[in-house]
Parts: sequence; structure tokens; C-alpha cells
Amino acid sequence: MDAVIMSGSELAKSMRQEIEAEVQEFITKHGFAPSVAVVRAGEDPASVSYSNALKKAFGARGLGFTLHTLPESASQDEIVELVAKLNAESSVHGIMVQEPLPKGIDESIVKDALSPDKDVDGVHPVNTGRLAQAAPVGRPPMVGPFFVPATPAGGMEILKQYKVSLQGKHAVVVGRSTIVGKPMSLLLLRENASVSMCHSQTEDLPGLCRTADILCAAVGRANMIKGDWIKPGAVVIDFGVNFVEDKMTGDVDFEEAVKVAGMITPVPGGTGPMTNIMLMKNVIEAANRQVRSN
Amino acid sequence: MDAVIMSGSELAKSMRQEIEAEVQEFITKHGFAPSVAVVRAGEDPASVSYSNALKKAFGARGLGFTLHTLPESASQDEIVELVAKLNAESSVHGIMVQEPLPKGIDESIVKDALSPDKDVDGVHPVNTGRLAQAAPVGRPPMVGPFFVPATPAGGMEILKQYKVSLQGKHAVVVGRSTIVGKPMSLLLLRENASVSMCHSQTEDLPGLCRTADILCAAVGRANMIKGDWIKPGAVVIDFGVNFVEDKMTGDVDFEEAVKVAGMITPVPGGTGPMTNIMLMKNVIEAANRQVRSN
Repeated sequence: MDAVIMSGSELAKSMRQEIEAEVQEFITKHGFAPSVAVVRAGEDPASVSYSNALKKAFGARGLGFTLHTLPESASQDEIVELVAKLNAESSVHGIMVQEPLPKGIDESIVKDALSPDKDVDGVHPVNTGRLAQAAPVGRPPMVGPFFVPATPAGGMEILKQYKVSLQGKHAVVVGRSTIVGKPMSLLLLRENASVSMCHSQTEDLPGLCRTADILCAAVGRANMIKGDWIKPGAVVIDFGVNFVEDKMTGDVDFEEAVKVAGMITPVPGGTGPMTNIMLMKNVIEAANRQVRSN
Repeated sequence: MDAVIMSGSELAKSMRQEIEAEVQEFITKHGFAPSVAVVRAGEDPASVSYSNALKKAFGARGLGFTLHTLPESASQDEIVELVAKLNAESSVHGIMVQEPLPKGIDESIVKDALSPDKDVDGVHPVNTGRLAQAAPVGRPPMVGPFFVPATPAGGMEILKQYKVSLQGKHAVVVGRSTIVGKPMSLLLLRENASVSMCHSQTEDLPGLCRTADILCAAVGRANMIKGDWIKPGAVVIDFGVNFVEDKMTGDVDFEEAVKVAGMITPVPGGTGPMTNIMLMKNVIEAANRQVRSN
């Protein structure tokens, strides 16, 4: 029997309505919309099309969106100054700095310059650190408020909506990026899964993957994870966004995996559509925190 | 054949000389010693004996040590004010706030109040976050400077000194505390191990432990990890400090484990003696960073 397809598109559709309602409620209460400012330096085509897509998605839900562009020749100081200006602006609730930054810019300095309270992408070390330190869900967190990167947050939301039990289960996360793999591992740990963090250097990666009750792929290599890497009945979350002959494909060989797994996210239509949703939720959350503390 | 005993005591002894030399060099160059300030609120007996032991250990190596005590009745604001004062004092290079703090004090607010540059215990979210974000060792780290908690840093130093190969190997870390288990997992990941984070909720913990090439125990339960939980030849790092009838014992059943493991740290005399050493190294590093940036 084929796996249950966990549709991020369907879930995103129903959550969009939730978000519209939250935005309307916020506007009614405060007289302005939760707003994000996006910073881009240079004209990287993927960045340009991403910020265009964001603008459209945010506008359609009633959220505020402003784009702040700098030339490819922008200096470190100019980028940091722009971020500092947006930190100070009370009409801006969330800030995202698009990557890639121009050559010679130290990304870590730009991240550090963000106000953690407006870092809706969850890239500031304070937000990563609080996520890493936070106690398991259901206990007092023992850390201040934080933001989680949207992509892994979306993966967790899919697991939650499809009622996947995580407590005590073995989750294997392949890929250790700062934006997906590592935060996904920390999120699964907070839900009391045992979490194995794997990567390109892992010995016997197929063998380790086969021990997973929940297998998460975030490596960026098309169809790398084969059907026989998957334990029968396992839940597979595919964060991969790869293009093979112009066709979008995940990190998991879907055709093979769907015959073995118990549940699986497709690509496209799985984790992808959830990313914007979770980002919007972070912006609304940031706005709510900021109005509460004013 | 019995396991090789990895002696933290022996390693600490040789590193003490290294540290003394570094301290002397620093004093010669700058005219003052790297110094730590310890904050304690209340008179918890374990805290009192720990700060006494630290004072002696730091003094013996020529490092500066000052103890700042507040009464058990100290308020959150009083503790935060003291930390802020020490942050601003240029003669203080490292600050440690002892736990437990009095009832009603929010530890996360006290941690957040520390200057990350003086947080030689590695408890500020910025330090945790940079450790979590840092690229694997050998590549540009892509984060600002950070401090790692001393106990896991000591475990890593033992692995390094005993030339344990980590690249691609499977490390299992049992226990997910903020001060040992989680940072140890992140440190092993940076050395390109695959890392499985386990804990009290893990299903089939013995089975998962048996897959470990490197098994790290940091749970705080005497003799919990049995000989048949260990893969023959595995390397075992025991962070446990438990007392059974006044006798110090680790989390690993040493008598059983020593017959199965390839290498093992004893308790006492394993990871314990390394903690102070790594703390001193953090204080020297903090002082060096501060004189460089002045």
C-alpha cells in the first residue's frame, strides 16, 4: 500500500485563512498591520524572485511588506546601518536579510546586527541559542522568547497536523544546515524524539536512515534518499528543493519511497508551501510581542 | 582485554603546566592576570564548596579569582545589577553565576544579563547559538567568537588527546542538559561525527547505545549504562557524577563496561578533572580577547 501523502499545500491553504483572521484581528485592535521589512543587497535573480513572491504572499494576507534594496557594491557598514535603522523603526515588526549577500560581506556580523525581537527568520545567535537551550515542550522553557526558522517550523507543523507521534521515537535528520537541518533536530528533540544528526560525512548513511521512525531530508541533492534507505512504515519529511531538467524534485526518491514509507511529503506541495505560512506566523508573533512590550 | 583507561587526571596534570605558562606569559605582557568573578546568591553547601575549590584551583595557577556573594534573599534586580557591574569592570575577564539561584529568580534573565564576551561558562544564548551555528571544524566558522561550557569541552579534549577518530563515526549522547549533553552533541557534530541525542524518553535506549562508536553519558544516574549496552571496542565518555553510599560513581557501570569498551573514562579521574582546566582556558581566552579589543 502506498504511503499517505502529507500535503503541505492543503495544510497551507487552511492556515492561510487562519492567518488572514489573525491579521484582521490585529489591525482592528491596533490600527495597523504586522509588517516585515526585507533587505536585499544586489540583484541575485533567485533573491529577486523570492522577494517578489514574498511581497505578493504577504500582501494577499493583509500583512505589511517593504523591500529595502542596496546595490551589489554596498559595504558591510551600509548593510548594518540599514538593519539598525529598521531595528529602530516601530512600524517594522520583522526583518529578513536576503542571502546571498555580496562578496566580502561577513554574514555573521549582519546577523548579529539584527534585533533578536525582529529576527523572524530565526537566524540571530540569540534565537538559535534559545531554541537549543529550551526545555522540552510542555515544561517551562527556561529561556526568553525566540523565533524558529520557518522551514523546519513548517515541517514540524506538518508532523503535528498529521498527528505523527514523536515522543521517544527515533528521528534521523540528514543535513546540518543552520537554516533547516540543525533547527529541525532541535525542534524534534524538544518533542522528546531521539534525534540523530547525519550529513555528508556519515558512515553507512543508508543503514542509519533505515533505523528512523521519522526521516527528515535536508541535503539539497536530488533523489539521494532511496526506497531501501527507509524503514517500512516510516514518516518521511522532504525539505529538498532541487531542479532536475527544470522539474522540481526533493532529496528523497519519491517514486521509490512512496512504496515503503507510511507517510511522506511530496515535492512540490510538501514542506515548501508551509515555509511562507510559518514566516507570516512569525511576523504576526513579532508584532504581538512588540505591541505588548510597548 | 580490558579497555584503555583515558585518564583525565593525568591529562589535567600536564595541562596545568601549560596553563601556568600561558598565565605567566599573559602577566608578563599585560601586567595583570586573567581573572574570573564568581557570583553566588545564598549558601547552598555544594555551591559554597565548589567556589572554594575554584578559588584554590585558580589561585594555584596564578589566575585572578574574586567571589561576590549576595544573600539568599537577593532579588532578581540585585543579581542582574551585580552582573552588569562585573560586565563593566575591565579587571574582570570572566563571570560565572553559580547555580542554584534562590527560589523565584528567573535564571534565563540572569544568563541574558551576562556579557557574552565574559560568559566563560558558555551559558548565554549567544554563545550557545554560535556553537550551534558554527560550521564544522576546519572550515571558516561563519559565526562570531564564542565560549563552550567547560565540561563537554573537557570531554572533547580527552577524545582529542587519546586520538579518537570522530569523522563519520556514530556518537550517541545520552542526556540533553544545556550544560553537558546538548553542547557535547554540537561539538561532536562539528567534528563530523553523526550524533544521536538520547534521553529519558528514548525508546530502546540500550539498542541505540549499542550502535555507538563513541558513547557519552550525561544523565546523572549511577551505573545506568550497562556493559551489554556498549558495542565491543566503543569509546565511552562518562560525565556522570553520582554518589552511592558516599562513593563517587559515573553514569556507566564501570566494572562491566571496562570489559567491553575499547577506551573509557573512569569516575573519578575522567571528565571531572578536565572541567576546571577548560574553565581556566576559557578565562585566559576571554582575557586575551578583551585585551586585543581594547
